[in-house]
Amino acid sequence: MREQFVIGIDFGTESGRAVLVDVRSGKEVAHHVTPYRHGVISERLPESDVLLKPDAYLQHPDDYLEVLETSVPSVLQQAGIKPESVVGLGIDFTSSTMVPVDRQLVPLCRKPEWNRHPHAWVKLWKHHGPKAEAEKIDRIAKERGEPWLSRYGGKVSSEWMIPKCLEILGEAPEVYHAADLFLEAADWVVALMTGEVKRNLCAAGFKSFWSKSDGYPSEDFFAALDPRFADITRTKLRGEICPVGERAGRLTPAMAERMGLRPGLPVAVGIVDAHASVLGAGAVDPGEMLLVMGTSTCHMLISDEEYEVEGISGVVEDGILPGMYAYEAGQPAVGDLFAWFIKQGVPEYVQREAQSEGMTVFQWLEQRAAQLRPGESGLLALDWFNGNRSILDNAHLSGLIIGYTLGTRPEEIFRALMEATAFGTRMIIDAYRASGLGVNQLVACGGLPQSNQLLMQIYADVTGMEIAVVSSKHTSAVGAAILGSVAAGSAEGGYDSIPEAVRRLACPRVKKFQPIPEQEKVYQRLFREYKILHDYFGRGGNDVMKRLKQIREEAGFSASGDHR
Amino acid sequence: MREQFVIGIDFGTESGRAVLVDVRSGKEVAHHVTPYRHGVISERLPESDVLLKPDAYLQHPDDYLEVLETSVPSVLQQAGIKPESVVGLGIDFTSSTMVPVDRQLVPLCRKPEWNRHPHAWVKLWKHHGPKAEAEKIDRIAKERGEPWLSRYGGKVSSEWMIPKCLEILGEAPEVYHAADLFLEAADWVVALMTGEVKRNLCAAGFKSFWSKSDGYPSEDFFAALDPRFADITRTKLRGEICPVGERAGRLTPAMAERMGLRPGLPVAVGIVDAHASVLGAGAVDPGEMLLVMGTSTCHMLISDEEYEVEGISGVVEDGILPGMYAYEAGQPAVGDLFAWFIKQGVPEYVQREAQSEGMTVFQWLEQRAAQLRPGESGLLALDWFNGNRSILDNAHLSGLIIGYTLGTRPEEIFRALMEATAFGTRMIIDAYRASGLGVNQLVACGGLPQSNQLLMQIYADVTGMEIAVVSSKHTSAVGAAILGSVAAGSAEGGYDSIPEAVRRLACPRVKKFQPIPEQEKVYQRLFREYKILHDYFGRGGNDVMKRLKQIREEAGFSASGDHR
Repeated sequence: MREQFVIGIDFGTESGRAVLVDVRSGKEVAHHVTPYRHGVISERLPESDVLLKPDAYLQHPDDYLEVLETSVPSVLQQAGIKPESVVGLGIDFTSSTMVPVDRQLVPLCRKPEWNRHPHAWVKLWKHHGPKAEAEKIDRIAKERGEPWLSRYGGKVSSEWMIPKCLEILGEAPEVYHAADLFLEAADWVVALMTGEVKRNLCAAGFKSFWSKSDGYPSEDFFAALDPRFADITRTKLRGEICPVGERAGRLTPAMAERMGLRPGLPVAVGIVDAHASVLGAGAVDPGEMLLVMGTSTCHMLISDEEYEVEGISGVVEDGILPGMYAYEAGQPAVGDLFAWFIKQGVPEYVQREAQSEGMTVFQWLEQRAAQLRPGESGLLALDWFNGNRSILDNAHLSGLIIGYTLGTRPEEIFRALMEATAFGTRMIIDAYRASGLGVNQLVACGGLPQSNQLLMQIYADVTGMEIAVVSSKHTSAVGAAILGSVAAGSAEGGYDSIPEAVRRLACPRVKKFQPIPEQEKVYQRLFREYKILHDYFGRGGNDVMKRLKQIREEAGFSASGDHR
Repeated sequence: MREQFVIGIDFGTESGRAVLVDVRSGKEVAHHVTPYRHGVISERLPESDVLLKPDAYLQHPDDYLEVLETSVPSVLQQAGIKPESVVGLGIDFTSSTMVPVDRQLVPLCRKPEWNRHPHAWVKLWKHHGPKAEAEKIDRIAKERGEPWLSRYGGKVSSEWMIPKCLEILGEAPEVYHAADLFLEAADWVVALMTGEVKRNLCAAGFKSFWSKSDGYPSEDFFAALDPRFADITRTKLRGEICPVGERAGRLTPAMAERMGLRPGLPVAVGIVDAHASVLGAGAVDPGEMLLVMGTSTCHMLISDEEYEVEGISGVVEDGILPGMYAYEAGQPAVGDLFAWFIKQGVPEYVQREAQSEGMTVFQWLEQRAAQLRPGESGLLALDWFNGNRSILDNAHLSGLIIGYTLGTRPEEIFRALMEATAFGTRMIIDAYRASGLGVNQLVACGGLPQSNQLLMQIYADVTGMEIAVVSSKHTSAVGAAILGSVAAGSAEGGYDSIPEAVRRLACPRVKKFQPIPEQEKVYQRLFREYKILHDYFGRGGNDVMKRLKQIREEAGFSASGDHR
């Protein structure tokens, strides 16, 4: 039997990447990364003088096409295989990254009449423009006792689809009306490839308040937000919502030519990136929590039952695996926090010593921090440098470090920051458990776990659980490839179910970290302290963090009129 | 009339310095610094293999003599004057820095039979060996309802004389018994110069529980600490206690020769260094608070009435000015805190930019921090990096920074640390006021105020008070010189009272900072937040800082058996 392959494409924040996976052995045969030519657009629109507001984070849709046209041919070429050897293709995407399109699926921002209008552009997941809209949705949903709110930990994020749509309606009704559809970028790319608009259930569930049992919230609810918004789910958000693992359609001849693939290739319905990682990491057994650790961390869990968990990002039936509930929680600053420290907090002598010892600053800090015992730094931190997503869901919170002395050293602060992210994860695990969900095994993937052994040991010690690290650096792309293989089905060289495909294709786990009892004991004491501070600053004991941000904003605006 | 001069000698922590002052014009004619050859001894005894315990900070008495023999001749030589032109001499000293001596006033550590014994050496003020002793004194004084305790803000410091004596009795009774006297180093140097043991009232009052109205605590009290300790004030601490401004005696021929001065020169009774600054700065009017700002800050105030002030270091009748009560409070880390940040917290790019702009890192940070408005950093700090002296008097407290975001920059942290020390000073001012004492004017001297305009502006804005900066960098040495002129009296070319000498010789004030109402308003809001955190972490709301230090100590000891 000749070799067969599936392709997974992962659309991230700064770049897209394709992996080519052997559909029998699960081996990653090739991968290729295409950085987005326009990156994250946050100051002004491309090729124009149109300045953007603070909190605006946009993207250029052509960058996604460039990934298709560059990375896909590249992996085929690297592996030396022909288009006929590829049996299926799947994609995952950041979310909610949304594209306003016209009837021909052309992004409004690509049309001359709209391309100088910020609201016509792709809004990246981290576009935080609709903060007020998210708060309004939150408030009105609470007032009305909307039942779906509890599936989102009782709080709506400005990063989601509906706030973004409402922002456009409020600030640019002309764009709102000109748009035929608002699409998840994942669904837009799939529609381009196949000619069919199939909305993926994963994003609809996690970012658009949709559920398998209830569908969208009622028109009454949307009308309460704005009378013009009443019909949105029948108009701008219309379209079939398709379960993960389904085939969205087949590659059109035009796109096949642009991507160097064969026409008719099965293409899977899209999925959100962190959620694809669950499949790629094979973390599908009950009680197995996946930590997707990069700039931020997502905490993913699959269960056959639905629970209400405090402060989670969402729970969606069939969101990742058919017949199962998928849970997501998150910490918004993890790798970002370490990067901040390395840029803003590490003295010159460390850089000098690291250089003379042939290490990066990160390595130097990790080595020194690893020589410390738990508790030896005397420091404790709250990891809220970018707010708290789970379980407090409060963007006004900020970071804290306590225990400084005149002897405090950079490696001690570095370790305290790592520990703080571990305590934050522990809070999330405890919230899952408090709801009734079991968490028995941790699996880690993403950029951080492989390169940072100390971090993994700290997580094992703080949680008191074994943590297994996934080998691949492209876990979500492999997850997308798994969906590609299911879109093909066994008849066309793939698999007939997601669980089967996961068993065959998920990335192996290369390393396991076990809690060290002596260290675990110290971390239990430190976690008690963390929890006291967490509750004091996070649950209304002292709202100083919010007040400091308010004072800051007033000072900033009065200083320059522009707080950027 | 020919020119006449007085000499003031300031014995600091790392060095001693002499100033020569024109006794008519008050002009500083010359100064000279002699660094202590043995510095602060904290690892092992000089020329030996005897290792010291953590918290041991000792000095070599010969270093003090070297100051007399080097800096004094130097100032005469610089000014080109003869010994006959000098009319008086005064000294000030760190305190309680104590010397165990034999009957001939020879320090025990200079005798072959004792020189390998740590407890025979000079204990520097910051020797923290007798922590347990200080706590015991504290406890027993409270149990017995000792009336003198309230003069010290209700708390005894391990830096004072009595805990140091008790430490020697407990740990080295043989040294205790071999010592004929325990002397303040100031009094030892004066005794060497004059041949007469005259204990200075300032140190006796602030560091030895002595008061003009009650003398020392009772023998019963000392016996309750240890039966062998009952008679200490009649034995090891015996000797006349002399008011500040008195003449201790006249320079002996032998010492005159060693110092290049004339025999018979009037020598003043000693004084504690920060207290000498009050005279040097001329901050002797009621309601005028002197901030002596260097590595730490002392807050000195003179009043004609006695009040009980929370958490002050002490109040002593006649302590600085006859007929007046002298108050002292303090913050243990100010300049030290900024130095810590510059060493441990400032990234390489700042160093690079500062260099390319021809500035020191300190100047670069100050310039950038000065461009920020109050509150704009979003940060708030507790300045307890070296514990809190006033008003909480708790060495277990530690530093805190709150409000971090991923955009936090070094100059923002720097400014927050400066602000924190200002808030700490504001707490002390408020405590003085709450007791009934007026504080209407701030005067600043020491190493920091002259070189850091932003810091002074912040202090003015945070306190809402004008702050005047003293010109001299040797304020305490000038204060000692003032006492030298009074020791001489008008009959010998000096002055007959301290107030008169202060009027003529105190250092001028060169610069005044006024609060800026708009900034004051923001700082009022921030100070409210500071106070909430101060009380929560400092008054038992959450003793996490103490627990972190405990965990740290356990971790440190179990790691290496040595926590140094």
